[in-house]
Amino acid sequence: MANVLILGTVALDSIETPFGRIKDAVGGSATYSSIAASFFSKPRILSIVGRDFPKEHMDYFKKKGIATSGISTGNKTFRWEGFYEFDMNQAKTLKTELNVLETYKVDMPDSYRDSEYLFLGNIDPELQLDVINGINKPKLIVMDTMNFWIEHRKEQLLRTIKKADVLVFNDGEARELFQTPNLVKAANEALKLVSTAVIIKKGEHGSLLFTKGRHFSAPSFPLESIKDPTGCGDVFGGAFTGYLAKTDDISEKNMRKAMVYGSVLASYNAEGFGTEMLKKIDHTDIEKRYKAFKEIREF
Amino acid sequence: MANVLILGTVALDSIETPFGRIKDAVGGSATYSSIAASFFSKPRILSIVGRDFPKEHMDYFKKKGIATSGISTGNKTFRWEGFYEFDMNQAKTLKTELNVLETYKVDMPDSYRDSEYLFLGNIDPELQLDVINGINKPKLIVMDTMNFWIEHRKEQLLRTIKKADVLVFNDGEARELFQTPNLVKAANEALKLVSTAVIIKKGEHGSLLFTKGRHFSAPSFPLESIKDPTGCGDVFGGAFTGYLAKTDDISEKNMRKAMVYGSVLASYNAEGFGTEMLKKIDHTDIEKRYKAFKEIREF
Repeated sequence: MANVLILGTVALDSIETPFGRIKDAVGGSATYSSIAASFFSKPRILSIVGRDFPKEHMDYFKKKGIATSGISTGNKTFRWEGFYEFDMNQAKTLKTELNVLETYKVDMPDSYRDSEYLFLGNIDPELQLDVINGINKPKLIVMDTMNFWIEHRKEQLLRTIKKADVLVFNDGEARELFQTPNLVKAANEALKLVSTAVIIKKGEHGSLLFTKGRHFSAPSFPLESIKDPTGCGDVFGGAFTGYLAKTDDISEKNMRKAMVYGSVLASYNAEGFGTEMLKKIDHTDIEKRYKAFKEIREF
Repeated sequence: MANVLILGTVALDSIETPFGRIKDAVGGSATYSSIAASFFSKPRILSIVGRDFPKEHMDYFKKKGIATSGISTGNKTFRWEGFYEFDMNQAKTLKTELNVLETYKVDMPDSYRDSEYLFLGNIDPELQLDVINGINKPKLIVMDTMNFWIEHRKEQLLRTIKKADVLVFNDGEARELFQTPNLVKAANEALKLVSTAVIIKKGEHGSLLFTKGRHFSAPSFPLESIKDPTGCGDVFGGAFTGYLAKTDDISEKNMRKAMVYGSVLASYNAEGFGTEMLKKIDHTDIEKRYKAFKEIREF
């Protein structure tokens, strides 16, 4: 089992959906992705919180075997407040308090420098690049991003993408970054920038893997009840990278499996509020749904 | 090989997309679906054209083994004029001339009454019901519809759906008919009305099959160049029903295969204008892409 370094945000989220609400729940890209990765490997988080960050969450990370020595401490934790409308398609932001993120610089513990698998969660692409440069000999660099960076830091984002092996983003972001409605065209453009693979996440429509000359389409799981989709993309990326690290196999064939594990975890995540479901499920649940994914696509 | 009866429109279409245009090309739901079905079985069309309908199209139907004795003749052929914008997602109608469709009544040849497989293409649900009532002993009734009937003839549409075995419609229509953003919920509601299965077509995102207690997700084929998506839904339904008739097997397992054949034909159809590609491809092309669909799904 190889080790996984995860960069991203650790946040306190307040979320409302048509099915309920939570206040000041632990969230952020590093939280979701590291808990997901912890089912497969021992992740290390690089992030920052404030002194107001409840100790119970830090204890939970440790309990899940997640290294937290790379979590810096500042004044006030990053907070996000948002809601989902009836169609649950996209989070609408009500308030973002950057707080500690405003001046965050990566402070990499020396013990992290031998990390082999990197998941660079959604955060400023300049920080993502700093992490790439701080690792001795990464085996696989997986990076996520979001529309905010496409719109406000496009040049920096493209510079970071060129250093990545696998780019993971969603369909809207793919269309926006490459200015085309056609996802295949967008993926082929992205493939010119990264070394290995492009993954497009399509929410309820599953996800797509593009590698040179090959294509894989992962189905989605038919969920009749979606409570809160927050973090599903992070969960997907964390589980994907965690599974690759566990198996230490970066073949295209194994990436397909890793994507299905990512989809399994993300589908569970959507069934509860915040990280609630990730805290409930175990390996039996995961393997059961992985089998269901096989059944869903058999013909 | 069982026989297939196809009800729908035969039209003259004028279409513009960002990649070109065609004028007065043969189109309509019965045209697309019967040509697609003809790769697998010998379809019979029930429809109406005008005296202005070019003989070459009628000759082409016959050449493909499609029975045309159920095509009535009136004054002027139904015409549709539309365009697609850059994202190619949805046809925008510029002009609809109903012409012969305005007063069309089903005139079923006696030789059609023994039809076993029915594909009721997109047309007035009252006509669809007339056809169901005119068949001696149908084995499988597959019906398609569209938003127009949901918005203007909902009661009649629901009455017809209750007589169908398989309902095929697209994601937007499923959400609209059952007033929910969740496709799984919509499909489960639809499953209460039909006897056997509900298929949701999602265009570039593939298609979903819902039967009692089972679920199948068919991937889409990664097309970098989509020239004209007109008729893809009809092609899907026609090939689906044609394949079931050819194999005379209506098990859930065989419906999965039929859906992939539907997707194969629809993906080819989108690569050319009007029926152009359907006229070019042969069984080798179909089997080649069917294999590619298997590859796309494997994990």
